[in-house]
Amino acid sequence: MAPLTLDSLRPAVLKVQYAVRGELAIKAEEYRVKLKENPGQSGLPFNQVISSNIENPQQKGLDQPPITCVRQVAALMEYRELQHLAPNAFPKDVIARADELYEEIGSIGAYSHSQGVPLIRKSIADFISDRDGYPADPNHIYLTGGASAGVSLLISMLISEPMKSGVLIPILQYPLYTATLAQPSGEPLPYHLDESDDWNTDLATIEAAIKETRNRDVVPKALAIINPGNPTGAVLEEETQRKIVQLCKTYGLVLLADEVYQANIHRATKHFTSFKRIVREMKSDVALVSFHSISEGVRGGYFECTNIPEDVIAMMYKMVSVGLCPPLQGQIGVDCMVRPPKIGDPSYALWKSETDTIHAALAQRTHQMVTELNKMEGVTCVDSPGALYLYPKTELSKKAVEAARKAGKEPDAFYALALLDATGICVVPGSGFGQKEGEWHYRLTCLCPGVVKFHEEFSKKYPKE
Amino acid sequence: MAPLTLDSLRPAVLKVQYAVRGELAIKAEEYRVKLKENPGQSGLPFNQVISSNIENPQQKGLDQPPITCVRQVAALMEYRELQHLAPNAFPKDVIARADELYEEIGSIGAYSHSQGVPLIRKSIADFISDRDGYPADPNHIYLTGGASAGVSLLISMLISEPMKSGVLIPILQYPLYTATLAQPSGEPLPYHLDESDDWNTDLATIEAAIKETRNRDVVPKALAIINPGNPTGAVLEEETQRKIVQLCKTYGLVLLADEVYQANIHRATKHFTSFKRIVREMKSDVALVSFHSISEGVRGGYFECTNIPEDVIAMMYKMVSVGLCPPLQGQIGVDCMVRPPKIGDPSYALWKSETDTIHAALAQRTHQMVTELNKMEGVTCVDSPGALYLYPKTELSKKAVEAARKAGKEPDAFYALALLDATGICVVPGSGFGQKEGEWHYRLTCLCPGVVKFHEEFSKKYPKE
Repeated sequence: MAPLTLDSLRPAVLKVQYAVRGELAIKAEEYRVKLKENPGQSGLPFNQVISSNIENPQQKGLDQPPITCVRQVAALMEYRELQHLAPNAFPKDVIARADELYEEIGSIGAYSHSQGVPLIRKSIADFISDRDGYPADPNHIYLTGGASAGVSLLISMLISEPMKSGVLIPILQYPLYTATLAQPSGEPLPYHLDESDDWNTDLATIEAAIKETRNRDVVPKALAIINPGNPTGAVLEEETQRKIVQLCKTYGLVLLADEVYQANIHRATKHFTSFKRIVREMKSDVALVSFHSISEGVRGGYFECTNIPEDVIAMMYKMVSVGLCPPLQGQIGVDCMVRPPKIGDPSYALWKSETDTIHAALAQRTHQMVTELNKMEGVTCVDSPGALYLYPKTELSKKAVEAARKAGKEPDAFYALALLDATGICVVPGSGFGQKEGEWHYRLTCLCPGVVKFHEEFSKKYPKE
Repeated sequence: MAPLTLDSLRPAVLKVQYAVRGELAIKAEEYRVKLKENPGQSGLPFNQVISSNIENPQQKGLDQPPITCVRQVAALMEYRELQHLAPNAFPKDVIARADELYEEIGSIGAYSHSQGVPLIRKSIADFISDRDGYPADPNHIYLTGGASAGVSLLISMLISEPMKSGVLIPILQYPLYTATLAQPSGEPLPYHLDESDDWNTDLATIEAAIKETRNRDVVPKALAIINPGNPTGAVLEEETQRKIVQLCKTYGLVLLADEVYQANIHRATKHFTSFKRIVREMKSDVALVSFHSISEGVRGGYFECTNIPEDVIAMMYKMVSVGLCPPLQGQIGVDCMVRPPKIGDPSYALWKSETDTIHAALAQRTHQMVTELNKMEGVTCVDSPGALYLYPKTELSKKAVEAARKAGKEPDAFYALALLDATGICVVPGSGFGQKEGEWHYRLTCLCPGVVKFHEEFSKKYPKE
């Protein structure tokens, strides 16, 4: 019989494109190994690979410290004896929280409720109702191993056969959505965000994408909105949010609200409003699933179901119980995120100073990098008020495009590979996120001054004429 | 437009049956809440719910302690400052391991290589080659968030359309396989294990299941073997393993070897041999994926690919990178599992005594429970040499079966619900694992003396005639 070959695999798997960790990431990893194995004599023109392809602020060489109280709770939960062995190493409120969690969970080696530890779901519900001014039900909240796990679950439940069904996803998008849709053979239904309007969401564009499906026997089941945007950092106006909810109502779509960057807005004039609040304010019955996750340290997140029938929620419970329970370390991390130290707690001052420093550094480095990018010839970059990424548009000369085609690469991937080869900076080419025909972008996460010098040299090598 | 309803979901999702955490587990959770909220006055005839449905030895009230050195490494990785704040709380080898892992990984808040930290994959490769006497390649090893994640990945890649395809799974099986297959619309192709031969695997039965698919246009893509068995604890003879490999060769099947209980064999006459070793000894080119995972504490595992083409391995890499990387806590746990303290290390004595105690307790409680079960009227139980479960067969009287049908339940579920109501012990009815028509089983994990008294009373209530 035939051995296992690519042809024998599920065709949808072959189609998955996942640029964030594609060819560039593999090459970056090879360079990292080379630098490590030949310190000082790698022959490479850089001493460090900078993973600017994923938001990974705690990688070595970057300066974002972990949040101390979160790590202290985690350490105490991992090794309970520490409270006796090192009683002075932990503030009183950290010890009290670890005690409370231990009382509820027992050992971190145990399995929890498949939906997540009840006490932590209660903390999340309090966090949501404080944020929105509307109550939240712990029974409608699912803890997950991160936002990806929640999005996958929802998509795999919604995509049904034999009629093709799809999910409307923004372009630009985090490639998770296309990759996840490919697995149960769902169809990504793209709608473009408007770069000329700071990557805003345009309702007419979404509606056009819905109408287009009618000619092809594809049923749109859900609309994914990423707010604040990833990679764009765009923050929606409430008026736009209300129109989006209305549109979901009109077309019977489940609204998947990816709100994982809700705490990252670094411009005073912009303000995050949850879709949960909008839906409640409108007294709408639109089915909404809202995702949130920890951006710091451990991998964990949750989703909240609003206007989802109880029998569908029970079906979710069945599906998540196949994986027994979300990892407890992540659940504990979520507890720290939604219930940070309060004024008067011994941990408060350090927590406040650490989080303020991180936000200020993020705002500052974003602003500085945007300024530098916009100074460069042929480069324009929207100044992102939220999220952690920048997404500059880069004009590439005809010569550069020809050289790329000759090398069998997309021009933006060609540019990004050259950037990696020259500087050790690993970015994600825009073709991985979706972009308009003939435009070239890349996504980067951190302050990478090396980009400026590289762009000058690249432009010299492939001049306009 | 119609709101979100059960009917609008993916039909395969509705079909998933997941007994391990079904109606019984939900009821057990309700009892747990009731006991907690009304201490001493719950009105229930027990003071504690015992989750004997999942192997969860670290739940409160059971006596299996966590392995100290594993927890120490985890705590040090979570909160690096502890090595200065509490230098005497950690043995030297634990500190050295945390330093080595930190040097490789950086902060536990960072993302790792999507396939898993290279150093840890190297440790796993060393563990495998020491175990088998054949080399292992770190590039063919994937770290995962647990065995379930690896099995899901493989199944979702192998199930292809439009022709129906399936995976041969043992009955008894861990319900993960059926649940996972339902998602990409794969077909479970059951083959029965032989209870009269201590749940052994019979080649003719598998071959009959393969041939049966030919009448139905279903393509069998893989054969799942669980060794040691779950829930049976049966351990395969090498001769049977060789025949299984030969059968995979004949029918072009990928061999999925679930070997997560390889370290749990507690009878001197039984010995675990990996399929990797068998395949290498036979110089076979059968495609093999071997799964292993941590049974203690954190959630983590790995799988190793043998005879899998490089382009298929690259496709796996693409798929796992959608999830960025397996949680680092689990990866660190795997490192401790495959590279435990060595003789002479400061941690060795405690580690040895802790693991020996756990194994002895497991062997002792299994033996004691089997003896008690087999003394009961109408109950027979195979004495399991491996794994963590017992799976007694229980005769149910005509009266009991009638009462069950009247209540709209499977008779074994009816029995298990009555057991929960009377004793607080939560087991899994055999109908969740598959069993022969007219036979009733349940799976339990721990020493539950309460079962004996319950069975007597149940038999009195529903007498034979």
